[in-house]
Amino acid sequence: MIIVLKSGATEEEIQKVVDKLKEYNYGAHISRGEHRVVIGAIGDKRMEEKVLIMEQISSFPFVEQVIPILTSYKLVTKEFNPQGTKIKVNQVEIGNDEIVVMAGPCAVESREQLREIAQFVKEVGAKILRGGVFKPRTSPYSFQGLGVEGLKLLYEVKNEFDIPVITEVMDPRDLELVAEYADIIQIGARNMQNFTLLKEVGKLRKPVLLKRGLSATLEEFLFAAEYILLGGNSEVILCERGIRTFSDFSRNTLDLSIVPALKEKTHLPVFVDPSHGTGNYRYVPSMAKAAIAAGADGLIIEVHPHPEKALSDGPQSLTFSDFRRLMSELKAIASAVGRRL
Amino acid sequence: MIIVLKSGATEEEIQKVVDKLKEYNYGAHISRGEHRVVIGAIGDKRMEEKVLIMEQISSFPFVEQVIPILTSYKLVTKEFNPQGTKIKVNQVEIGNDEIVVMAGPCAVESREQLREIAQFVKEVGAKILRGGVFKPRTSPYSFQGLGVEGLKLLYEVKNEFDIPVITEVMDPRDLELVAEYADIIQIGARNMQNFTLLKEVGKLRKPVLLKRGLSATLEEFLFAAEYILLGGNSEVILCERGIRTFSDFSRNTLDLSIVPALKEKTHLPVFVDPSHGTGNYRYVPSMAKAAIAAGADGLIIEVHPHPEKALSDGPQSLTFSDFRRLMSELKAIASAVGRRL
Amino acid sequence: MIIVLKSGATEEEIQKVVDKLKEYNYGAHISRGEHRVVIGAIGDKRMEEKVLIMEQISSFPFVEQVIPILTSYKLVTKEFNPQGTKIKVNQVEIGNDEIVVMAGPCAVESREQLREIAQFVKEVGAKILRGGVFKPRTSPYSFQGLGVEGLKLLYEVKNEFDIPVITEVMDPRDLELVAEYADIIQIGARNMQNFTLLKEVGKLRKPVLLKRGLSATLEEFLFAAEYILLGGNSEVILCERGIRTFSDFSRNTLDLSIVPALKEKTHLPVFVDPSHGTGNYRYVPSMAKAAIAAGADGLIIEVHPHPEKALSDGPQSLTFSDFRRLMSELKAIASAVGRRL
Amino acid sequence: MIIVLKSGATEEEIQKVVDKLKEYNYGAHISRGEHRVVIGAIGDKRMEEKVLIMEQISSFPFVEQVIPILTSYKLVTKEFNPQGTKIKVNQVEIGNDEIVVMAGPCAVESREQLREIAQFVKEVGAKILRGGVFKPRTSPYSFQGLGVEGLKLLYEVKNEFDIPVITEVMDPRDLELVAEYADIIQIGARNMQNFTLLKEVGKLRKPVLLKRGLSATLEEFLFAAEYILLGGNSEVILCERGIRTFSDFSRNTLDLSIVPALKEKTHLPVFVDPSHGTGNYRYVPSMAKAAIAAGADGLIIEVHPHPEKALSDGPQSLTFSDFRRLMSELKAIASAVGRRL
Repeated sequence: MIIVLKSGATEEEIQKVVDKLKEYNYGAHISRGEHRVVIGAIGDKRMEEKVLIMEQISSFPFVEQVIPILTSYKLVTKEFNPQGTKIKVNQVEIGNDEIVVMAGPCAVESREQLREIAQFVKEVGAKILRGGVFKPRTSPYSFQGLGVEGLKLLYEVKNEFDIPVITEVMDPRDLELVAEYADIIQIGARNMQNFTLLKEVGKLRKPVLLKRGLSATLEEFLFAAEYILLGGNSEVILCERGIRTFSDFSRNTLDLSIVPALKEKTHLPVFVDPSHGTGNYRYVPSMAKAAIAAGADGLIIEVHPHPEKALSDGPQSLTFSDFRRLMSELKAIASAVGRRL
Repeated sequence: MIIVLKSGATEEEIQKVVDKLKEYNYGAHISRGEHRVVIGAIGDKRMEEKVLIMEQISSFPFVEQVIPILTSYKLVTKEFNPQGTKIKVNQVEIGNDEIVVMAGPCAVESREQLREIAQFVKEVGAKILRGGVFKPRTSPYSFQGLGVEGLKLLYEVKNEFDIPVITEVMDPRDLELVAEYADIIQIGARNMQNFTLLKEVGKLRKPVLLKRGLSATLEEFLFAAEYILLGGNSEVILCERGIRTFSDFSRNTLDLSIVPALKEKTHLPVFVDPSHGTGNYRYVPSMAKAAIAAGADGLIIEVHPHPEKALSDGPQSLTFSDFRRLMSELKAIASAVGRRL
Repeated sequence: MIIVLKSGATEEEIQKVVDKLKEYNYGAHISRGEHRVVIGAIGDKRMEEKVLIMEQISSFPFVEQVIPILTSYKLVTKEFNPQGTKIKVNQVEIGNDEIVVMAGPCAVESREQLREIAQFVKEVGAKILRGGVFKPRTSPYSFQGLGVEGLKLLYEVKNEFDIPVITEVMDPRDLELVAEYADIIQIGARNMQNFTLLKEVGKLRKPVLLKRGLSATLEEFLFAAEYILLGGNSEVILCERGIRTFSDFSRNTLDLSIVPALKEKTHLPVFVDPSHGTGNYRYVPSMAKAAIAAGADGLIIEVHPHPEKALSDGPQSLTFSDFRRLMSELKAIASAVGRRL
Repeated sequence: MIIVLKSGATEEEIQKVVDKLKEYNYGAHISRGEHRVVIGAIGDKRMEEKVLIMEQISSFPFVEQVIPILTSYKLVTKEFNPQGTKIKVNQVEIGNDEIVVMAGPCAVESREQLREIAQFVKEVGAKILRGGVFKPRTSPYSFQGLGVEGLKLLYEVKNEFDIPVITEVMDPRDLELVAEYADIIQIGARNMQNFTLLKEVGKLRKPVLLKRGLSATLEEFLFAAEYILLGGNSEVILCERGIRTFSDFSRNTLDLSIVPALKEKTHLPVFVDPSHGTGNYRYVPSMAKAAIAAGADGLIIEVHPHPEKALSDGPQSLTFSDFRRLMSELKAIASAVGRRL
């Protein structure tokens, strides 16, 4: 790290910084410019100490800024696994040349609904079935999901149609049960910094799809993944699903440029959720295609046979015919970027 | 609610909306303008149905927009408790003319640290001691708090100095224990939409300080509080602590205009956290004064005798002398707005 | 428009709204619900009056909200020109099946630089040469462009290589001159609401590329275009170039979902600028491809033979070899969405 | 500046950076850490060169980041004028202990309207009359102001009531005329980066109130002021008026924490506009008081005798009785922070 002192810093103040560095076994390399004293901290400490000492030095009133040179996360970096993480879910492999589409209803509503959708999305090429049973809803008056009953339906339908399933978990107390029934655990955007949940999920040996929080920076997103990897679970899929901005024509602003940025910085596969990312079925196909063109490894898309009867998120769900058309368009895009679907 | 159809909507489409309304026992009042058909839904349904039907009608492709007329939350509204909620914590009453200041370290670090701070902040007029023991940290390598051991220190110091304590809870499994030791439960910004936690906290009979999420709209903030009130716990304090914006000179952007807006819409007391709201001790005093001038009922402020040795958030902690000065300045502001401290 | 009165509105207050509507020759259609009185304004007024009366009625303290039913812009709407606007610039036609790429340096630096770039970008398929001569720079100490001298270079090179040119104008006093030399006038993001400039550009008969402002909503963007069309100039190209958000890994957040949204609402062609949209040459190719996949009609891209010697925006400029590779990849994407390049 | 190379940078690449620095007469101080090579640039160059070289070095593909050590603006810094700028407008002095309130209508509508307001606001303590005659309006169909006729009314009323006036200028061609009639020139938020206008205003010898742009960082705001000071005009008042965020209960988000931040960094006086900052008359008084408590030097507030008849911005205008009450409350706050009004 590099420490820049305020203009007019005294020798005593410089010494305080040097002493603080020494306290943590860092060497100090002092450079006296014409306007500022700059101190380089030399050493290769454990992450825990780096983070702490940066904050403490920032607290000195005579310090102007403390600049980290290295990232403060480690396990998620590209350097840590240069060939990239591949995640096997039954016959599907996430993170290789094949684009993987997860599709299904926002919420599991009934056996009939789920069977109908599962059969259809599999038929047109989706590899994984999505379906929420514990639903995080802004309003306590909105449908909260079928809970355990829904979980069992997912399990039943997954077996009947031989398609792996993904579902969200919100409560650490549900985790064990969900891990038994589902093939991929989803951590939703609102829980991206639910550190309790991240730590628990880190103990599992089960793939996790981690959604970017509505106001998460790229660094915070990677730190959230680092929590999971640090627990020992390295099968994490990162998923962009729109951020909160001033722009009000779409429910969220889908930040596709994070796809190449993540691809550059981490070895983890990157997915995009154009359904939540736009909140509007009319924009989903365009953004799904754009996501693949931008380099995403896969998509998670909401599909419902009758959006106007959906118990959740109807306005952003694709009908069967829309989804069928999209899948065929996606094949062309995948091939244009040298991949397949 | 009011439903606006797209230009060129057919009689059949109008009928579909009317039928959907009838399905939920709403009357329909159709108004045919020169460019658009507008349908008013007449009826007084339960919240659950209102929310669902709005979403379903929005999913019809021939519907342009659905406009709610009434708020979708109820228990938190001003109308529900026009005199305003007062919350008694031992001798302190929150929500009346007296401005209540909660102060203390970001994190409980040791018995000595906590005792020193408790004694000091009480002496200069703080009424409640804050101190984190379960710390939500962006990085897994940052200090995560002392946990249960810290909780016991809080309890010990609270009894020694006779000052109520507030601490954050992140895991629903810790809630029972924390509720035994602490006087006020804090739900942090990152957990504002941790609905699991909100529901559990709703079952307690214990005051809760609910912080606004980094990207929460006013409506989402009130919905989060509604979750708690709906559970039966009506002692909720709302706390603005800065939102995530593009502005980068402060860690967050403290949105003080939410103070008058909340005061207008809800009966719950409103606090401000200028420490997290700015992330910089140099801006804390100005924003603390501004918060009281704007009408806040209280403040929660981080204080540390040696910020450069703090294990967490040193850069935003006030020193003892800064805090002493601020408390005296706050008295003058409180009095200028007809309140006391 | 629909006017919702506050709960408890009196007959006298209802009458005040009705009178105000009558004053502007609107009829009033009163609907008394169980909780609110809602008044529909009936009539087909001029835009000028609609906008004014909405604001005035909003100012009554007993009015809760005023909801517009129709858009407040007109000339830019899809309905106004359902087949879509095509813009002819010499042999190039913007807005049809062909994807049009504009490329060139951020700033014109010298005859040699411009000639080298013009020859190259034309060779690999760019149809229009970009080059700034009046540069809007955050810092007064940054290179401000060659001004009129640069304009002449543009003109010279355009004739030598037979390629139309686009350049930005910031000062209404330069407009006449620029219109003489350039084929397309660019209005930059910072001037999207420079209404003086918009009105002047509206008087020209020359294509205009209008960039979205850093904090412009879709509605504000369309209003800015409406200013130009209202002046009589209907050859406007809309260009997304990134918005200002909290996200800090890229210079701006490229909001590609505005592409399908604009395509739905307006007849004007839609371009994307991935160079400013990301601020980082490493992300430009991915986002260029994503833009075409999302439905954009063209791109404007910064290219420089030696970014490390550029006088402006080096970090977001593509080198020749990067640009050549991108153009070939774009051809594949264009074809995958049924277009050509 | 400090240059951090990417991991694995070669000796040749290091040399390229050193050579580039030498080209601009900088010395290079190389520090080889365990993971990164860091190069300090030593020298005291002109601003123009610093800005350029930073950008060029950033363009090398082997450079990870370039970190400025010193600010890139100069004339606006606190160091440049430590006692702070005081601006004399007739008998009023802006920037000293007295809080200065500017008040008046959003737009000048008629002689009667302006006279009535001028007389009133002066009577209750406003020192400067505001009134727009060239109005920047989102919609071309909104009232655009009375133009030159309005300017003459301002001049007439200013003389009749002996109160200085402030009005906005949008077009550089109007500047000379406006400067003749008005006492303070306002540059609106949408023109904060209209560099043409900034340069022209820099040539005047007339106070300028510069509003922060809707998406301007603190640094961009100071750079805009630097443009004016660099032209020779040092009488600049900075004015916070709300920024564009996701938060939707107020028209903009008033960022009051910029008050202490600006006070720390610049010698220029700082004002706040709570009318545009909230867009809602109900929140204006709270935020006006908060602004003074936060340390602002003055306020600019919209007042209208009949907001429901205003031709512009009625919903954010205070009535006479509201403004009278506010002025009396502000006196108490001013006194609580050791100032007067």
